[in-house]
Amino acid sequence: MTQRPIQDFYPDELAVCYGCGRLNEHGLHVQTFWDGKEGKATFRPRPYHTAIQGYVYGGLIASLIDCHGTGTAAAAAYQQAGREPGSQPPFRFVTGTLNVRYLRPTPINAELELRATVREIKGRKITVDVTLSANGETCATGEVITFQIVEQQVNQGK
Amino acid sequence: MTQRPIQDFYPDELAVCYGCGRLNEHGLHVQTFWDGKEGKATFRPRPYHTAIQGYVYGGLIASLIDCHGTGTAAAAAYQQAGREPGSQPPFRFVTGTLNVRYLRPTPINAELELRATVREIKGRKITVDVTLSANGETCATGEVITFQIVEQQVNQGK
Repeated sequence: MTQRPIQDFYPDELAVCYGCGRLNEHGLHVQTFWDGKEGKATFRPRPYHTAIQGYVYGGLIASLIDCHGTGTAAAAAYQQAGREPGSQPPFRFVTGTLNVRYLRPTPINAELELRATVREIKGRKITVDVTLSANGETCATGEVITFQIVEQQVNQGK
Repeated sequence: MTQRPIQDFYPDELAVCYGCGRLNEHGLHVQTFWDGKEGKATFRPRPYHTAIQGYVYGGLIASLIDCHGTGTAAAAAYQQAGREPGSQPPFRFVTGTLNVRYLRPTPINAELELRATVREIKGRKITVDVTLSANGETCATGEVITFQIVEQQVNQGK
């Protein structure tokens, strides 16, 4: 397991994401730890992240799956390239398609656990499967189809 | 076009959603206006809802599509039942599956426009198609498969 989350290695200009940017002071600060096979993250919802009283808002769940998916894609890309996170040039991915299935209500007074595996790496496109669980039960699953940002897009803000 | 958003008619115990609950003081307050054929909503992102500088976070886009989808489902259900919103018992839907495609970067300094149409009503299940656009360009599309909450589930917080 890496000691630092992959998001620590995003360049400053790509670290302002509301979901996972370490430089977004209002954000959720999703942190993805990569163990060589899986991306792992935990998140404790805030009391106001409600759907219905006692349960987590689906939009938050989609957000967590989204950012943990792109983080896992970045970590896997470094591994495939045989490079350490932090080496240049940096890997950073954005989401092209996000599919989430809500399997059961997600309790809000629990630590949410996210696990992500890479289904496919195909050029700049990486597909990631994510599960979100609470108290040992899978509450939602997600598929995140991500694309590597190339430098030109960064300069255009894309 | 209805003068009041469908979310105004959600019962208090179902109006605490972070995305669209009028009673969630921290939330986004998505408001869905139904014109008999389409659900319409607008949203102005806050400056910190960034993905990359200048562009909107995908998790926020998913959240808006989610809540506008369930709101549109509720409005359509009243119409199909030949009842006015606010009549009893209330209609309230939750999301079973949320699929979002990000077509282009969404500018953050713009008013986002959401349009939703009902693809299918099948018992308690309503499928809604949503588009999100900014400055006249479609930036994302979504499919929201929603399910009507039944009273027993409300009491269980489901």
